[in-house]
Amino acid sequence: MTSAEISTDTRAHEFKGSVVISVDAMGGDRGPAAVVAGIALSADKNPDIRFIVHGPRAELERLIAKRPGLAERCDIRDAPGVVTMEDKPSQVLRKGEGTSMWSTVESVRKGEATVAVSCGNTGALMALSMLRLRKLPGVNRPAIACLWPSRNPQGFNVMLDVGADIRADAQDLLTYALMGASYARNGLGLALPRVGLLNVGTEEHKGRAELKQAHELIGLSAASANFEYVGFVEGGDLPSARVDVIVTDGFTGNVALKTGEGTAKLVGDFLKEAFGNSVLSKFAALLAMTSLKRLQKRIDPRRVNGGVFLGLNGTVVKSHGSADETGVSAAIKLAFQLAQSGFHDRLAARIAQSLTHETAGISGAESKRTS
Amino acid sequence: MTSAEISTDTRAHEFKGSVVISVDAMGGDRGPAAVVAGIALSADKNPDIRFIVHGPRAELERLIAKRPGLAERCDIRDAPGVVTMEDKPSQVLRKGEGTSMWSTVESVRKGEATVAVSCGNTGALMALSMLRLRKLPGVNRPAIACLWPSRNPQGFNVMLDVGADIRADAQDLLTYALMGASYARNGLGLALPRVGLLNVGTEEHKGRAELKQAHELIGLSAASANFEYVGFVEGGDLPSARVDVIVTDGFTGNVALKTGEGTAKLVGDFLKEAFGNSVLSKFAALLAMTSLKRLQKRIDPRRVNGGVFLGLNGTVVKSHGSADETGVSAAIKLAFQLAQSGFHDRLAARIAQSLTHETAGISGAESKRTS
Repeated sequence: MTSAEISTDTRAHEFKGSVVISVDAMGGDRGPAAVVAGIALSADKNPDIRFIVHGPRAELERLIAKRPGLAERCDIRDAPGVVTMEDKPSQVLRKGEGTSMWSTVESVRKGEATVAVSCGNTGALMALSMLRLRKLPGVNRPAIACLWPSRNPQGFNVMLDVGADIRADAQDLLTYALMGASYARNGLGLALPRVGLLNVGTEEHKGRAELKQAHELIGLSAASANFEYVGFVEGGDLPSARVDVIVTDGFTGNVALKTGEGTAKLVGDFLKEAFGNSVLSKFAALLAMTSLKRLQKRIDPRRVNGGVFLGLNGTVVKSHGSADETGVSAAIKLAFQLAQSGFHDRLAARIAQSLTHETAGISGAESKRTS
Repeated sequence: MTSAEISTDTRAHEFKGSVVISVDAMGGDRGPAAVVAGIALSADKNPDIRFIVHGPRAELERLIAKRPGLAERCDIRDAPGVVTMEDKPSQVLRKGEGTSMWSTVESVRKGEATVAVSCGNTGALMALSMLRLRKLPGVNRPAIACLWPSRNPQGFNVMLDVGADIRADAQDLLTYALMGASYARNGLGLALPRVGLLNVGTEEHKGRAELKQAHELIGLSAASANFEYVGFVEGGDLPSARVDVIVTDGFTGNVALKTGEGTAKLVGDFLKEAFGNSVLSKFAALLAMTSLKRLQKRIDPRRVNGGVFLGLNGTVVKSHGSADETGVSAAIKLAFQLAQSGFHDRLAARIAQSLTHETAGISGAESKRTS
C-alpha cells in the first residue's frame, strides 16, 4: 500500500457517511454570490455532500445565512486574500498564503476534504496545487483533463492534457493515458475505456518522434492497465464515438479545446443571427424554442464544467472563471463523483502498478543480460 | 527581379485576356463527373477562365461533350494513371509520372497554366508539387493555408500551416506570416491584414521557445512587409474579428482545423436531432428552413473549399477529396482570384525582399563590427 493510499484511508474515516468538498468562494468572475448559489444548488440536490468554504468570513456568513439549512452543512475558513485572474503563478506561490485559493487546496492537503473546487486563475491554481499537494510518485508532468461533448452514450469524451504543461514526452503521454483511463472509469463509469493518441493522421508512420514512441508504450500498457488502445486519432475524432479518452500534449490540447469552444460559439451566434433575420424566422424560432433549448443543453459548456488536475496527491477541480450557479454546481457534482468513487486512490494505485511493471521489466532485462 | 517573376511574366503573355487553370479530373472521392460538373459551373459564371483538364482522354471527352460550349474552353491532357487516397507520397514520387496529378502540376511548371487544382491525396500532391515546382528561394518549409469562417467582414480568416509539415521553427513561422499576409491581400482583398501567432495564451511569457522567438521576428517584419502584427492569439480567436491571418506549425494547425470541422459537424448533427424530435419541432424546422439554410451557407465547408500550397514556384489549390460540383467550383474560383491578382509574383517578391532585408541586416551588423 502506498503512502498516498494510507493517508486517504484515514480521511475517509474522519468523515464517515458524507463526502466533504473544499470550495474556493473567491477568484471567479461573478464573485462569491455565484459560488454560494452553486453550493446551495448542489446541497439541495445531494444530501451526502458537506462543504468547507474559503473566503472572507463575514461575507460568506451573510451569503450562506440567506439559504435555509445551508449553514449547518458548511464550515467556513476565513481567508481574506484573493488570487485575481491577473496574478502571475510565481507571485501567488511566494505571497499566496492567506488567500482563499491557498486555503482551499490546504484543506485537501490536510485531509479535511477529499476534492477541491475553484473558479480562480488556472495557472495559479495549478502552481499552488503542485507546491502544496506535490506530484504523485511516478508522475513527471501532471495534466488537466476536460470533458468534451461527444456522440458516445455517456455524452462526453475525456481529453488531456489541456494546458497544465506545454510539453510532453512519450513517457508523459503514457502517464496521461493511464490517468485519463482511470478518470473515465471513475468519473464516467466506463469499465473498459478506449484511449486514442491525437495525431495529424491515423497511419502509423505519421507524426512526431515522441508520438510514435508513445504509440508503442501505450499499446503495450493497455491490457495490464485495463483500457483499450485504439491508436492514433485526429482532431475530427474528439467528439466521436470511436474513442473515450484522447491523449495529447498540453499545447495541442489547449489549442484544440479553445478551437472547439470557439467554433461551437460561432455556430451558435450564426444560428441566432439566422433566426433573428425576419419576422417569419423569429416566429419559427419561437416554435422551435424547445428544440433549440435541447440543443443548447447538449452543448452547454456549463454542464461539462470542470477541468480536473490529475497526477497530484489529491484531486482539484478547476471550474470556468465565468461559471454561474449552474456551472459551479456541475463542478461540485463532478468533484463529488470523483470523491465517492475513490478515484484518487485508484489512480495512485494504477500509476504505482505501472511503475512496478516497468521496474520489473528493467530488472528482468538486466538479469537476462547478466545471466 | 527574381527568376520566378520572369518565368511567370512570360506565362501571362502567352494567354492574354484569359486565365488558364490546370485541373486534375481524377483522385477525388466522387470521380471525374463531379470535377467536370464543377468546371462547367465555373465556366458558366466566369467567361475569363480557360481550363487544361487532366485524366483519361476518352472519359473526359465524353463528360465534357455533354456540357454545351465547354469543349472549346478545355484542353484535355491524356493521363491514364490515377493517384489514389491510399498511395504513399514516396510511391507517387517514384512512379507517379503518367498520372493525372503529375500532369496537372506539370502544366503549371511549364507555364501553360497559372494555378493547379486537385481533389486528390494531399500528401502526394504536396510531395509532387515540391518535387516538380521546387521551393521558392528563401522558403525552407512550404505551407498549406486554409480559409476559416469568421466574424470578419470578409467572412473568412486565413490559417497556415494546416499540414504541409509537422514542424516549424521561428524562421518558418516568419515566412508563414509573410506568405499568409500576401494571401490575405490578394485572395481576400485586405490592404493591411492583421496577423496573429497561435499560442496557449496572449501573454508574452507564454509558450514554447520558438514561439517567443517568432513573436519577435514577426513583430520586427510587420511594417516593411505591409501587415499589422496583433501578437499571440488563442484557439478561440480563430473565427474572431481581431485577426485575419493565424500563423502556426502544421501539427497544431491540422489538429485545430479538424477539431473545428468536427465541432461544427457535431453541433449541426445535434441541431438536426433536436428538430427531428417531435411533430411540433419538425413543423418549426419547416418554418425555419430559410434560417437554417442561411446558417448552413455560412458554415458550409464547400464554400471555403481550397487549401492553398504556399512557398513553391507556382500555386496549387487542394480541394477537399469529397468535393461535389459546388466545392470544385469554389476551388476553381479561388484559383482564378489568385491567378488574376498576380498573387504568385507578389508573394515571391515579398519573400525576396525579406531575404534582402535580412542580408542587409547581417552585413550591416558585420560592417559595424569590423569598422
